[in-house]
Amino acid sequence: MSDSPTNTLSSWVEVTKNSDFTIHNLPFGIFQNKKLSPRIGIAIGDKIVDLSILDQEGFFADMFLPGGVFLSGSLNDMIGLGKVITKKIRERVQDLLLVDNEKLRDHSARGKVMLHRKEATMLMPVKIGDYTDFYSSKEHATNVGKMFRDPENALLPNWKHLPVGYHGRASSIIPSGVPITRPKGQTKDPDGAPVFGPSKKLDFELELAFITGKSTKLGDSVSTADAEDYIFGFVLFNDWSARDIQAWEYVPLGPFLGKSFGSSISPWVVTLEALERFKVESPVQEPEVLDYLKCEKSHSFDINLEAHIQPENEKSSKVCTSNFKNMYWNVAQQLAHHTVNGCNINVGDMMASGTISGQEPDSFGSMLELSWNGENAVKLESGTERRFIEDGDTVIMKGFAEKNGIRVGFGEVKTTVLSAK
Amino acid sequence: MSDSPTNTLSSWVEVTKNSDFTIHNLPFGIFQNKKLSPRIGIAIGDKIVDLSILDQEGFFADMFLPGGVFLSGSLNDMIGLGKVITKKIRERVQDLLLVDNEKLRDHSARGKVMLHRKEATMLMPVKIGDYTDFYSSKEHATNVGKMFRDPENALLPNWKHLPVGYHGRASSIIPSGVPITRPKGQTKDPDGAPVFGPSKKLDFELELAFITGKSTKLGDSVSTADAEDYIFGFVLFNDWSARDIQAWEYVPLGPFLGKSFGSSISPWVVTLEALERFKVESPVQEPEVLDYLKCEKSHSFDINLEAHIQPENEKSSKVCTSNFKNMYWNVAQQLAHHTVNGCNINVGDMMASGTISGQEPDSFGSMLELSWNGENAVKLESGTERRFIEDGDTVIMKGFAEKNGIRVGFGEVKTTVLSAK
Repeated sequence: MSDSPTNTLSSWVEVTKNSDFTIHNLPFGIFQNKKLSPRIGIAIGDKIVDLSILDQEGFFADMFLPGGVFLSGSLNDMIGLGKVITKKIRERVQDLLLVDNEKLRDHSARGKVMLHRKEATMLMPVKIGDYTDFYSSKEHATNVGKMFRDPENALLPNWKHLPVGYHGRASSIIPSGVPITRPKGQTKDPDGAPVFGPSKKLDFELELAFITGKSTKLGDSVSTADAEDYIFGFVLFNDWSARDIQAWEYVPLGPFLGKSFGSSISPWVVTLEALERFKVESPVQEPEVLDYLKCEKSHSFDINLEAHIQPENEKSSKVCTSNFKNMYWNVAQQLAHHTVNGCNINVGDMMASGTISGQEPDSFGSMLELSWNGENAVKLESGTERRFIEDGDTVIMKGFAEKNGIRVGFGEVKTTVLSAK
Repeated sequence: MSDSPTNTLSSWVEVTKNSDFTIHNLPFGIFQNKKLSPRIGIAIGDKIVDLSILDQEGFFADMFLPGGVFLSGSLNDMIGLGKVITKKIRERVQDLLLVDNEKLRDHSARGKVMLHRKEATMLMPVKIGDYTDFYSSKEHATNVGKMFRDPENALLPNWKHLPVGYHGRASSIIPSGVPITRPKGQTKDPDGAPVFGPSKKLDFELELAFITGKSTKLGDSVSTADAEDYIFGFVLFNDWSARDIQAWEYVPLGPFLGKSFGSSISPWVVTLEALERFKVESPVQEPEVLDYLKCEKSHSFDINLEAHIQPENEKSSKVCTSNFKNMYWNVAQQLAHHTVNGCNINVGDMMASGTISGQEPDSFGSMLELSWNGENAVKLESGTERRFIEDGDTVIMKGFAEKNGIRVGFGEVKTTVLSAK
């Protein structure tokens, strides 16, 4: 039985109806607990498959993997084995989890191989080399342009010709669950004088990021046709932003301290293979793009995205419903553009989409857009209002794809904001 | 005998009059050759001291260093031992090299410990985590502002209030000697239409970069008073730039592909300790800066900098003479600003100064400024003219400090430009 677009598979592991971690997903992550050192696991339902134990028990013996490749604090070395191998690893686990396969189901080591996700702490899935953030949602770029530049010419002249992006700070990317501290910094007060203090306009940005799975040499480029060979998988990405710090610092060299205090990601890396069945046509690009940005195939994905705010001691409210298919520039174009000048990429680089906004006001992927730079309060279910993110708030992002009864999701990235030090 | 500002030391190793690598310098680097795997060395005169052999021979026995710390492909682990230890290592080597010290001079292993620099290939000195480029020369920022924005208001409003900087690409930083390929990319042709092809405005930028020597936790900041504890040393930095690609892409998120095709560094890391005696007063900052950017002491250095162009089959010509003391924002202010929002730094991060230009036209640190964006040809000694950098050209940057007969230099960063692929 194989995982084709028309087949719905089922597993001997219980997977509830709305679980993101179906047998069609099987994302990779790094986990640990008090007894277990950091290692690679695959999520299914409420469980984690400990690949290191599976390997010790001989389930990968015919694949001749490097010893201890799953006993690692990051996915980098495993990803570096190449897509042919990582696909085989994931397919092997999928096969072992199929409802009729007794090899693991009835194996004496099953109890050691499988643990409950609640018993594990998720760590950063990769050691990130370089991190890039794109700006690929037309709706987001238009909204920002309307607010801060010219409402009549919101998109800058280059925007439809190339996927605008910038280098971000890799060191401060943290996994879901790690709190973030409100940044302090320099802003301009209403009189125009620079002042120092905690940011008053702390914001989230709802994004997805891909993790590169293959390196290039300096001087080489990746075509749009080959780009997917270089993409291992995706995570949810909350690109925390301090709008007031950013507004004062960003001319002419771009965002710096307004972003570098932290970005949060979901810990389970959903592979490109798991998302394949959710591909949809990319938006029409007009004017026509230059040859190196043209695509033969689609590289857009129908992935539902949500952002929720949970004030301290209150329940959570959804404030945004968006979709990854809204992106004007797709991941193949982003990677082709990034490398067209010969810039080399390494396994474990992270490239985020930029805020993913749709056309409807409730699909805007940041408080900047939802509150229109603080002009309009966003009402939460509890009646509480928010213009930006307050101390004690928890921001939760979720993402999932669903088609023909098959669901593949990202889990969540959940981050509580602590007051400034 | 100790290395105080008033003492001139001499060594039993021959050091010629204009050598950058005096006994007062002793920079660290990573070298290898056909027989020797990558390892840490210290340069003196035309020689390298192989620290791994020195360690094997017991010269650091009393320091209880981790086994094999010098047998590494990067300085990171050694730097990570902390400044107390790395200072002791350098002082031990300085002591052993003193003219009257017979311990190494007359040791049977001396031949194994010392090798000629010509017999070694220099590699990247550090595995760079994140790379940041500042924009800290007032003259450079003013020149660029005059050319591309408003000649009457060349400096943007934020420039004198904070050290403007941006995140750069770490993966494409290469050591001296590795050629660079002319980047291709998207530019705007004179009619305003986007076109694709090799950059027509390839440029160098004359910079110095510091390497961080101590990590911080996310959320923590470094004060200007403590900043030097976090700086291990400096290298020359050539921030290659494709002006035409940069001009089209950089609004609103800053430089991206116009820079990320490569940056070149000198391979010997000159320690902060070696540069201490060359400190000079920092320029007066008017208007007064915010408290977190104020400095009790000086963190500016009198370091002569030069850029040379050597066209293929021609001799080399000096095109720029500048000085690191020209920087408006000093390294302590850069680091305090970078971390004031809680952004964490790691051992081996690289922070470059931005182009270091002086007030005189021959002190401008880029062809953009020297040729005033191609308006005026720069005449080389051979009679050849340059507006930007041509294929086959080699760009050489040098840097040295000199005071009371004591010289401490950086050697060079030398890079040949290959034609676009």
